[in-house]
Parts: sequence; C-alpha cells; structure tokens
Amino acid sequence: MAELKGFFLPRSPEGKASIVPEPPWHYSGDVLTIEYRTDPANVAALLPAGVEPAEEDPGAVAIVWADWQSCSDTFEELVDPVRSQYKECFVVVRCRHDGETYSRCVYIWVDKDFALARGWFQGYPKKLGSIWITRPVAVGRAGPRLEAGGVIGATLQANDRRLAEATVALTGPSETAGFVNALPMLHSRWMPAIEKGAADSLSELVTMGSRDVDVGPAYTGTPQLRLFPSPAEELAALEPLEMIAGYWRQVGATFDGGTRLA
Amino acid sequence: MAELKGFFLPRSPEGKASIVPEPPWHYSGDVLTIEYRTDPANVAALLPAGVEPAEEDPGAVAIVWADWQSCSDTFEELVDPVRSQYKECFVVVRCRHDGETYSRCVYIWVDKDFALARGWFQGYPKKLGSIWITRPVAVGRAGPRLEAGGVIGATLQANDRRLAEATVALTGPSETAGFVNALPMLHSRWMPAIEKGAADSLSELVTMGSRDVDVGPAYTGTPQLRLFPSPAEELAALEPLEMIAGYWRQVGATFDGGTRLA
Amino acid sequence: MAELKGFFLPRSPEGKASIVPEPPWHYSGDVLTIEYRTDPANVAALLPAGVEPAEEDPGAVAIVWADWQSCSDTFEELVDPVRSQYKECFVVVRCRHDGETYSRCVYIWVDKDFALARGWFQGYPKKLGSIWITRPVAVGRAGPRLEAGGVIGATLQANDRRLAEATVALTGPSETAGFVNALPMLHSRWMPAIEKGAADSLSELVTMGSRDVDVGPAYTGTPQLRLFPSPAEELAALEPLEMIAGYWRQVGATFDGGTRLA
Amino acid sequence: MAELKGFFLPRSPEGKASIVPEPPWHYSGDVLTIEYRTDPANVAALLPAGVEPAEEDPGAVAIVWADWQSCSDTFEELVDPVRSQYKECFVVVRCRHDGETYSRCVYIWVDKDFALARGWFQGYPKKLGSIWITRPVAVGRAGPRLEAGGVIGATLQANDRRLAEATVALTGPSETAGFVNALPMLHSRWMPAIEKGAADSLSELVTMGSRDVDVGPAYTGTPQLRLFPSPAEELAALEPLEMIAGYWRQVGATFDGGTRLA
Repeated sequence: MAELKGFFLPRSPEGKASIVPEPPWHYSGDVLTIEYRTDPANVAALLPAGVEPAEEDPGAVAIVWADWQSCSDTFEELVDPVRSQYKECFVVVRCRHDGETYSRCVYIWVDKDFALARGWFQGYPKKLGSIWITRPVAVGRAGPRLEAGGVIGATLQANDRRLAEATVALTGPSETAGFVNALPMLHSRWMPAIEKGAADSLSELVTMGSRDVDVGPAYTGTPQLRLFPSPAEELAALEPLEMIAGYWRQVGATFDGGTRLA
Repeated sequence: MAELKGFFLPRSPEGKASIVPEPPWHYSGDVLTIEYRTDPANVAALLPAGVEPAEEDPGAVAIVWADWQSCSDTFEELVDPVRSQYKECFVVVRCRHDGETYSRCVYIWVDKDFALARGWFQGYPKKLGSIWITRPVAVGRAGPRLEAGGVIGATLQANDRRLAEATVALTGPSETAGFVNALPMLHSRWMPAIEKGAADSLSELVTMGSRDVDVGPAYTGTPQLRLFPSPAEELAALEPLEMIAGYWRQVGATFDGGTRLA
Repeated sequence: MAELKGFFLPRSPEGKASIVPEPPWHYSGDVLTIEYRTDPANVAALLPAGVEPAEEDPGAVAIVWADWQSCSDTFEELVDPVRSQYKECFVVVRCRHDGETYSRCVYIWVDKDFALARGWFQGYPKKLGSIWITRPVAVGRAGPRLEAGGVIGATLQANDRRLAEATVALTGPSETAGFVNALPMLHSRWMPAIEKGAADSLSELVTMGSRDVDVGPAYTGTPQLRLFPSPAEELAALEPLEMIAGYWRQVGATFDGGTRLA
Repeated sequence: MAELKGFFLPRSPEGKASIVPEPPWHYSGDVLTIEYRTDPANVAALLPAGVEPAEEDPGAVAIVWADWQSCSDTFEELVDPVRSQYKECFVVVRCRHDGETYSRCVYIWVDKDFALARGWFQGYPKKLGSIWITRPVAVGRAGPRLEAGGVIGATLQANDRRLAEATVALTGPSETAGFVNALPMLHSRWMPAIEKGAADSLSELVTMGSRDVDVGPAYTGTPQLRLFPSPAEELAALEPLEMIAGYWRQVGATFDGGTRLA
C-alpha cells in the first residue's frame, strides 16, 4: 500500500492537497510595528507556566501589521497569488525561559488558511480576521511617501467587530525597527486531548527564527493605537499606558524549522 | 502566577480568546449527502498505514454539504450568529481498523475559523472554502419544496477555483440518509515536528461519534456531481463511476469528545 | 450590427453577463423586523424635498434583517446558490407624498453584487456589509425554536466596523409583522451627472410593491437594539428612544417593476 | 426642511453615508496590462448602437489587473485602508464615435463597494469578483524583481468560478505600457426604467480621462492568458487569437468628472 503524502493535512496520494507544503517557506512583505508599554502584569498574565517576564522593560508590547507574499521552495504559489498573499496582525511580548530572553506571539489574526496552518505548526496562535494596512506609494496622491509627514494606518477586525486601529506618522529614517519582536521566538504548540478532561495531547515549547533575512530601509514615526473589546477576544486588556515608537520596513526571510525546547 | 486558560489557542488570562470554547459543541443544520462509487483503489489510496478499505462496497464515497448553526454549552454564540453559523463540504469513505468498520473524512472545507479549529481537534482535515447549498423553502417561489420535483444544488470553491458542483432532484421521502457517513469516525490527528525531518510530534488515531442525535424527515433523490481539478487539491481523483443516491435531512447532534485508539 | 443585450450592465452579445437578469424576481426568505421610535426629527431629516413625514407616529422606524433566496424567472440561479442567496439589513421609515403614505428605505446593506444592483434599480440605496441572523431550528439544540423563549440575534458590519446588533426574545405568535415596512415603497433613483457641478442625470421618485405575497406564521417578541457609529455611516443617528416590538416571519414575494411618480 | 446631502447614495443629513464621496478621486496603484487580438467580430459585438470598431487593429483587446489605493480629496480614507484599497480586473477595447477613437471598458470586476459605485457613475460596468496580482518585491525571495526573468501572475474569480488567469514573464524595460487602454474612455451610463418594458431611464454616452497622471517606469514581458466560461459571463467569448505583449507599471492619477456626449 502506498503511503499518504503531504506535509500537514489533509494527507493524500500525491501530497498536493496539504493545506501548506513543506518548509522552507519564503516571505517578502511590508511590516508596520508599533511598540508600547502596558502594565507588566498584563504581559505576565499571558505567559505559560515555566516562562517568566523579561527582566528589562517587562511591560513592552509590539503590535505588528504585515502584508506578505510567501511561497514554498517550488515558488509555484507566486504566480497564483491567491495562494501566496496574506495579511496579518499580531501581538508580541518578551519573556524568559531557561536563562534566555525570547520574543513570544500571544495573539495573531491572518486572512488565509495556509497562513493559519503554518502558524499553528509554528506555535503562532492564529485566528482569522480582516487586516488592512496603508501602502506607501511612489506615484500619485493616493498614499503616503516614505518620508517625514507620511501617515500609515492599519486596522483589524474579527467576528464583525473592529479590534484595533492604529496610525504611524512617519518622522524619518531609523536605524532599527523595534526591539520587542527582535529575539528568537518562544512558542507553545498545544493540541487538547480528544478525550474529555485528559491532559493535552501535544504540549511543546519550541523556538525558531528566520534565515536569509533581507531588510529594506527602516522608517520610524509617532504611533497612535486604539484597542476595542469583543466577547471573543482579550486583546483590549493589553491597554497601552505609554507609546514607544512606530516603525515601517520591508522584510524578506525564510523559515525552515525550529527547535523543541520542552 | 495565574494559569493560562482556554480550550485551544490562543490561551489567555480569562480563556475567552480561544478560537473555540471547550466541548460539548451543539449542532443543528441541513445536510445534503450524495453517495457514489469510485474505483476502490482511489479510496484505498487515501487510507493511512494500518487502516484498510471496508470489506463491502470499498469504493463507496459520500460527499456531504452542510449548513450548520452551532454553539458551545453556554449557547451565547447563538445570538451572535457570525460566531455560530458556518457551511462545510466534506468527503467521507469507509475503512477498517482492528476489526471494526468506520467512516473517515478524507477532505473537508469550511468557511469559518472556529469550525476549522474544531475540525483539526477532531481529526477532520479542514481547509477554507466557499460553500453554497440551496435551501428548501415553505413560502414563495424562490426555492424547492421538500417533495418530488424539488431540486437542491450545492457548490464548493477554494483558492478561487470551483472544485465541485452537485444537484439532487428529490423523488420523495426516505427511510435513511445514506450509509457511508453513518459509522463512528476514524480520524488521524497529525502535527508535524517543528524540527526538520523529525517524525510527527502528534500522530494519533481517534474515534468519535455524536450524542443526542435528533433528525428530521429524510428525503432522497437523483444526484448529479461534477468534480474539477486544482493544483492544490486531489478531490477530482475521486471520480464518480456510479451514482448511488442523494439525501437531504435536518440533523441535530452534540459532540463531546472521542477516544484515542492508537 | 447586432444589438447589445442584457437587463442592466454590462450589456453583451448574449445578455448573460448582466449583473442581474430582467424581472420578475422571486424571493423566499426569513425576515426579522424590529420597530422602534426615534426623535421624529431624525426621520424628517432623511426625507428628500417634496416628501413629508407620516402624519401618525412620524418617528417610527423599522430595522429589518432578511436572509433571502431569490431568482429570476428562469429559476436557474436556484441550483447555483452562490447566485441566489444573500442577506441584508435595512432601515425603513414612513413618509407622505402627494396625499399618500408610503414606506421608504433610507439605509440598506447587502452581501452580494446582484442584490446591490437590483436595489439600485429599485431605489434601495444599497451598500455592502456583513449580515448575520440566527436561524430558528427544528432539530437539535443549536438554535431557538419558534416559540416563547426562543431568542433570535442579528448583526451588521460594514467597512470592518460593527454597525448594529439586535435580539428579539420571542413571546408567541402574532397577527401582524409590523406596520412601518408594510406600505408601498417610495424610493428615489439618483445618478449624479458625469459633469462636475451639474444637476443629477437621473432623479426620479418611484413607487413599487410586491405581488404573489406568500407569508408563513408570524411571531412577535421583545426587541433589543444597539447602533454603533462609523465615519462612513449615519445609522447611529437614528437612536432608539422607545422600542415597539420585534417580529419574525417567512416571506415569499415577486417583484415585477414599479411606477414612476416624478 | 434641511436638504439631503451626499454625492451618490444613500443621501443623508450629513452626507457621510454616501457609498462614495464626491470627486476628485485620487488613485495610486500597480497596473498589469496584457494586450492581445481576438476576432474583430467579438469586439464589434460588444459595442452599442452608434459606436463603431476602431479603424486600425479592431480586434485588439487589453485585459488589465490593477491593485489600487484611492481616496477622496479629504484623503481621510488613506488611514482607514479598508476604505481605500481595492483590486480590479477589466477588459478594454477601442472604438470609434463621431470621428474620434476611444478606449471602452466592456467588462470589469472589483472587490469593494465604493469602487463599484464609482464605476457605475463613470460607466464602468462593474461587478464583484476576487482579484489577485503578484507583487514585485525588493527584499527576500517571495516575489519577482522588476527585471528580466521576473514573472507576474494574476487571476479573476466571480460567483465561485475562476474566469481568467494570466502571467507576464518580464523581459525588460519598456517605453510604453500598451495602446488599447491609452485613449479617452467612451462609456455608456444606463439605468433601466422602473416601469416594465419602458425605455431606459438613463442612457448616456460619456467620455472621461484622468488628470495629474504620474507614472513609474514601465516593464514589458511575454504574456499568457486563459479565459474560462461561466453561466453568468461572456468573457470567454473574447478568445485570444494572438498575444501582443504584457506590461507592468505603477500609475497615479486623479479623476474629476467627464463630459456627456449624447
């Protein structure tokens, strides 16, 4: 009997039906990052047992909007862009495990199923949402230029409720694009047991990073952020007490697996 | 330190952010089933190691369209129907494991993230799609009546390609609503390892059924089915060689966990 | 040279490409109506020149959610339900013109383009939105029964903002299903001139009704309604000061043209 | 009594509810154009009475995919990008009226309601669809560079059927970006009468162009195009007999009204 093929699910005779092909996965996109401080207790409340807040600036949060094009190593998805383009909005905090400081994604929304599947594999707790990000332009009047005075907006909706809206009013070039989402990721991969009341069938702590990172010039600006409540979300609990900065940058990277820590 | 709460992901301080609340999950909906025979080799090619084709009628396939309303045991989603209604199209075959005959879902598309998450938990290999099913009506002229002569249509699209379209021309009431999707489910729960080339981190064979099943009158009819190719699907390989029958029925049921077999 | 065919647009050699085929259009669906009173000045402010508020109860408003199946006189759309099913949420007030009292739709959102086109033709000022309505069920636990105690919810979103949410807690059967949306419609059909600053190229006052109206049993209940602001809407200005009642009923009808009044 | 405000519909007390604000409308976007020849009879069959085929190359067709950001003269939509970004796919032919040669859009699909409304106002016969276009990238591996060897893909879906898919394999820079969509537009604005069988209530021939056109460097390449049938479309009748070329260019422009010709 032939074996089922396919990286993820469904597995099938030829392996073409899998919701996502096997890594490596390549990404090129525009990334808008807003960093701010919330009450450190709000961050601590989002960390699983065995993971502690970062020692410095433990209330720092990054909320990131990204407009990606991505593909597998066959690159075939690039000419069928319904299978390569997606947008996402995600929230990152820093944390500490076994003596190391990591970035950790605590909430994330995407608008395509292949992106959701990749996230679950990587420990990004993805849900679906509607994500929009102003695009800088080089021609015409319908968009900001990447220079002082340009304003970039971004919004997030899920379950027919707006959850977040933000703007970054650019002030000029930047050496960096933020520090909260800049460390190796520390993620949990969980799958509840099929049997009621039993312990999780999968409960791993993993770390991962990117290779072949290729970034364009970074820009910084003054951020504004509003978070809105929803009965199916806890994003609004991460209330901004102090804004740090906003950043915009083009990012290219390749993901090719991670490491199980526990 | 408080513990993270939430059935699935993301886990959060209050447990409200989880993409799906804990079971039991209640379902009420309209179910259109088309049964047909393909080459038994096509079914066999979809079974994992250790699972054999059914002994009788091993080429039988059911393709099912369902228009569901569903909720958790709080029932709160019912008044926020963006969180309770979804449609799905799925393909079921029968198989044999350890001396028992089961139903097994080999492909499935849904149109909401909470449904996708529940599926992954249960071993339904869900992807996103656009699913439409004609609704029988009791008033007016814009729909079939549940009686001989009524015709019910159904379609499936994913990644901007139509994958399937079907009709069932009702001929009258029915004692049953098909045999292919009528057994306990035998599903695989897979999660690839985060480390490249390593064995799956989760690879379980589970079984599950429903409780409190509450069905309305069943109707049968003459089915037609067309499957279309896509570079990201293998559905069209399950070519119909002989149509068996079509059925329409309202179904209510509760899911409350399953059993790990291996 | 052959003539272009097609009821609306685009017009094409065979007439198949038109966004909507010619009337008659048949409708069958579920209709949830909530009636309330706002400040009569809010209603008056929505009427065009030459149209006055109703003499009795001039602050009465109906907000209606409907889940439709519809088709042309070929009925072919019924088996391709992506082309026949749509949902809508709309707001109706009463008004007076030339000695007659009419219903008038002042705001409306739908989720399909064919429905939007039919609306523009009829003078319904349709925009796109995301509309959800709880479905009463006859089996299972995932939905209300059409009886005292059943609760039906409904929501509206446009441009990624929730605009309205409502519930009706059923109390029992009803003789009627409301009075605000029960009169012949008085609608404006407007098309601005292509030349800047010129008067409208089309500015008609039309009236229309339905034929072959076929209704199921009506139910009434206690309504709740919340309206939310948006920078692209004025719905929230129609603030409820006093709730009247809620109703649910299945409705079938045929539209086959109207009459130009002015 | 105060007057209703708003450029289009709905008209409302403050004019904020209109599906689209008044012109001027500014556009900045990426435009992929594929030009080819079909049987000139296919083009002629799409022209209304009083409009003739172009004298030279009367079978030339342009199919254009565009990924736009757009806004009104307040520019406020730019920071709420769900109201400013949209994609479209449209088909342009050339034609002759009153001694002048024009471009004319015969079919067009967009993915936002504000874009659809603007189109109906301008005589673009817009319907809704799902449109995707590969984005050239400057960082990373997930996209083509704007240079020889880069391949740009584009697809169109409506009513859950793929209607068109195309690629352009870039060969290098270009002086031009095509000739079919390069003339002033000649469009029809039609609104059928509300009264059955009566002549159109609006039937205008209009022309329009853009001002403040601001283009980036153009690139050309080798095109491929496939058109697929649908029961609700006639696009596939515009069968490519000979491919001319493909082009990619960034375009900025402002629309501020047109001229009625008849």
